Amino acid sequence: MHEKFMQEAIRMSIDNVRSGNGGPFAALVVKEGEVIARACNEVTTHNDPTAHAEVQAIRKACDALQHYQLEGCTIYTSCEPCPMCLGAIYWARPDQVFYANTKQDAARIGFDDSFIYQELELPHHLRKIPTQQLMREEALEAFKAWDALEDKIEY
Amino acid sequence: MHEKFMQEAIRMSIDNVRSGNGGPFAALVVKEGEVIARACNEVTTHNDPTAHAEVQAIRKACDALQHYQLEGCTIYTSCEPCPMCLGAIYWARPDQVFYANTKQDAARIGFDDSFIYQELELPHHLRKIPTQQLMREEALEAFKAWDALEDKIEY
Repeated sequence: MHEKFMQEAIRMSIDNVRSGNGGPFAALVVKEGEVIARACNEVTTHNDPTAHAEVQAIRKACDALQHYQLEGCTIYTSCEPCPMCLGAIYWARPDQVFYANTKQDAARIGFDDSFIYQELELPHHLRKIPTQQLMREEALEAFKAWDALEDKIEY
Repeated sequence: MHEKFMQEAIRMSIDNVRSGNGGPFAALVVKEGEVIARACNEVTTHNDPTAHAEVQAIRKACDALQHYQLEGCTIYTSCEPCPMCLGAIYWARPDQVFYANTKQDAARIGFDDSFIYQELELPHHLRKIPTQQLMREEALEAFKAWDALEDKIEY
């Protein structure tokens, strides 16, 4: 059964290249044996750098479920998730993930996944995108307000 | 000038808690001294686990620019980006990033950022969300198709 869903994701990833719609990536979200969301990479057609297959499939699946969590769901993605997509997966909290191509495979055809994984492990001052902290004391007010809030919806 | 923009992000993050709209996070994208996108965390109101402030601000800024890159832009975020948002930032490629609260501050009020950073460094079989590879050989067909494609839009 896992192979059947992955086969569909792979077929979509190939079709996405051939149709000129975007990069060679696709993902499905499956719940109780049913596909509840399908998506391909559409970064360039949507002018949206976050429109990776997994992010889009998660957004569609959560919309279908009307919930911000994917409990009981499995994600099938044609490639090992990049850090953005893996982060999205952790926030969505599906039960499990299957992937096919690796991040090294993606790097070999020009995608930055491996580079971004390396950057995440570096201290801020060594990263390629300069990153600096300022005004932490002022910003902590928001966290104190959250901490003190009753009836908040945690996620 | 950096303080002025960060002050606005911080104010929005506090307002987002007080209005019950979402978590204590906000972000701005600035280009040539002008704010081109503003966003708050709206995970629970949009039923979208990817609706973090930075992801939403990047999507809005790219929509405003009609491009999938944020060259020449600066991102001001009220909290150090989580792995999903940092990944999104790397894909969007702004010139620089300023943040206020840290991921440790976020962890202290119950947000998973630090946990996700730790998970990313673990091998798949030790992660909390089980992750397995299958059908790589079949999936490589999509990468070969991409590699062979002429006139493709790289991103």
